Amino acid sequence: MDHQLTRELNERFGILFHDGDLLEQAFTHSSYVNEHRQLKLADNERLEFLGDAILELLVSDYLYREFPQLPEGKLTKMRAAIVREDSLSKFAKECHFDQYVKLGKGEENSGGRERPALLCDLFEAFLGSLYLDQGLAAAKAFIETVVFPKIAAGAFSHEMDHKTRLQELLQRRGDVQIEYRLVKEEGPAHDRIFWTEVYADGERIGEGQGRSKKLAEQSAAEAALAKL
Amino acid sequence: MDHQLTRELNERFGILFHDGDLLEQAFTHSSYVNEHRQLKLADNERLEFLGDAILELLVSDYLYREFPQLPEGKLTKMRAAIVREDSLSKFAKECHFDQYVKLGKGEENSGGRERPALLCDLFEAFLGSLYLDQGLAAAKAFIETVVFPKIAAGAFSHEMDHKTRLQELLQRRGDVQIEYRLVKEEGPAHDRIFWTEVYADGERIGEGQGRSKKLAEQSAAEAALAKL
Repeated sequence: MDHQLTRELNERFGILFHDGDLLEQAFTHSSYVNEHRQLKLADNERLEFLGDAILELLVSDYLYREFPQLPEGKLTKMRAAIVREDSLSKFAKECHFDQYVKLGKGEENSGGRERPALLCDLFEAFLGSLYLDQGLAAAKAFIETVVFPKIAAGAFSHEMDHKTRLQELLQRRGDVQIEYRLVKEEGPAHDRIFWTEVYADGERIGEGQGRSKKLAEQSAAEAALAKL
Repeated sequence: MDHQLTRELNERFGILFHDGDLLEQAFTHSSYVNEHRQLKLADNERLEFLGDAILELLVSDYLYREFPQLPEGKLTKMRAAIVREDSLSKFAKECHFDQYVKLGKGEENSGGRERPALLCDLFEAFLGSLYLDQGLAAAKAFIETVVFPKIAAGAFSHEMDHKTRLQELLQRRGDVQIEYRLVKEEGPAHDRIFWTEVYADGERIGEGQGRSKKLAEQSAAEAALAKL
């Protein structure tokens, strides 16, 4: 087992594995196993299968509870954005997992250590090994440290439209009445422009315009978000 | 709340909901909500989002532990077969969930109560509501009753090839040494036929033939499975 890895996991995340072999397996890429057949090692692919499902549940549970106003379609979009390859590969790098994964020489020389698909699988495999070693609560605690703060900070909120984001942001602070008021419309029917203001509990927090009422409301919400 | 449903859930599965509204929401299709806007009901779509991830984890965990020899690719195929729409819609019907879901008239008249996609979503939504009401262990207990016995009985094992199935079946009974022996090959190089026998702990349990060694082994495994 890599002592640097066990030390870093302990210092940064308070994680100490009971079963060091599981941790080692999570950091063993198939290319390394293939180049060391005599060692009869296990690669991390089955752990990745498990970790994928664990992450999916933890993220789903979080989104369900944190965004009570979001319809299923938006939740699904956000979840997909969070668990997709490039997101997870970034999380893996932030955890320095790329420094510890064991690769075969071919994989190493072709830049495998930087490959998003490999790092994404590595992140999931680690989560799978943590779950097997210490259960779902430990896996959740790790994801609470690494992933959830990014969601809370809005890193995946571009999946929402401006009105939804504004609603989520305001209602997180308590029950707020949001109202859009059409204040002006001008121009001929085929080329009309609408002006809208958005109010939170009666206070005007943004204004916008657009070629439809809907676009004007989005524009007002965007302006309000920029101010908040 | 539907008293028939609560009685059946209790009698068949030993499930009693603390929060009856959650259970009711799981059985409320969006078409019903749309036709009764004045009631301000919540449909089951967000619960389905959550239940989908719960099922994925429970099935993944089960497959990971029950099939320790299966590589990640086969696990993924089996999981996909288990959680796909037509499988889940059958589970929903076996639980009689189709009898209890509330539909709008249009959906009802167009046969929605029989529609696999609707029943699949319903099954997932119920699982989501059970998880929220009573936690992951309760959701697992339900899936242990409804889904896992089907997997154990081999309902999804057609996703495995014959050699893999044979290995899984034999090794479930303990550590068994499986060996394939090429006993004969005949014919010219471009039209060769191979004969193979398969042994379990030294005892011959099947024989087969094929146009390659691989095919002959699959054939021998198939013959052994037929006998077991």
